[in-house]
Formats: sequence, structure tokens, C-alpha cells
Amino acid sequence: MTHFIESIGLLAAFLTTTAFFPQVIKTVKTKSTGDLSLPMYTLMFSGTVSWLIYGLLKSDLPITLANAISSLASFVIFYYKIREVRAAKKKLV
Amino acid sequence: MTHFIESIGLLAAFLTTTAFFPQVIKTVKTKSTGDLSLPMYTLMFSGTVSWLIYGLLKSDLPITLANAISSLASFVIFYYKIREVRAAKKKLV
Repeated sequence: MTHFIESIGLLAAFLTTTAFFPQVIKTVKTKSTGDLSLPMYTLMFSGTVSWLIYGLLKSDLPITLANAISSLASFVIFYYKIREVRAAKKKLV
Repeated sequence: MTHFIESIGLLAAFLTTTAFFPQVIKTVKTKSTGDLSLPMYTLMFSGTVSWLIYGLLKSDLPITLANAISSLASFVIFYYKIREVRAAKKKLV
């Protein structure tokens, strides 16, 4: 049963981690983040970092693995969104 | 220490769960999903459902709580994205 649970966790880790990749690739390519929500990626980045700490403290491999990669991925999207918001503010001035 | 770890988990659950809300609200309001990635939300929805099963099997409250709500939230975004993709296909025919 433990192996089965671990497998479900690793599947979940694989799915939600790879979920970020198409958005990361799309955002890096197009540099267009107009339809993306800034609060979402602010919360997502700080959230995945918190999950990473939780995973490490609980010695939970799927949680730790998933959130180490997701933190990096959500940071990249967050970075491009911030860049666009700053560029838009400069245009207004 | 257990209470501390549980608190970190609940904080993480709160952050990544609320992360979906601004995007859900934005998507429901604008119905514009052009900059959103379809593979992302397909993977995110199936991933959060897998995490939900993992959380239930491990009796992990933060994981279960976070992914019950995130599954619902990512499904809403996924639904609007699918709707736009279908509408775009119809226009091409």
C-alpha cells in the first residue's frame, strides 16, 4: 500500500510540475502575459516555496520533488509578468 | 514540531489554493483565455485530482484540503479554455 500511495504522489508530482512547463515555454516565447494574473503567480510562487518547506520537514519525497521544480517554474512566469507590469507603468509615465 | 509542520502545510495550502482564484475570476469575467496554455490546465486539473487522492490515502489534511479546492478551480479555467478552443475551431470550419 505504501508503494501504491507513493506512486500516486509521484504521478501527481509529475502532472502538476509538468503543468507549468507549457505556460513557461509559452510565456518565455511570446513574452505576452496580458491574460495572466499577477496575484495568481505571486501566490503560486510563495505557495510552492511553502510546500517545498513542508515536504522537506515531513520528508515527503513527492511533495519536495514537485515543489522544488514548481517553485522554479512559477518564478519564471512571475518574473515575466512583473517585467510586463513594469514596462506598462513606464509607458503611462 | 508537528503543529509547526502542519501550520506550514496549511499556509502552503492557503497560498496555492487562493493562487487560482484571481485567474478564475479574471477568466470568468473576460472569457479571454488566449494567453493561457491548454496543456497547462489539462495537466493541472488531472494533477490536482491525483494530489487529492494522495492526500486522502495519506490522511494529510493540508494536501487534501488544498487539492479539493484547487481541482475545482483548475477545472473552471480548463472549461473556459476548452470552450474558447472549440469556438476557434468552429470559426475555421
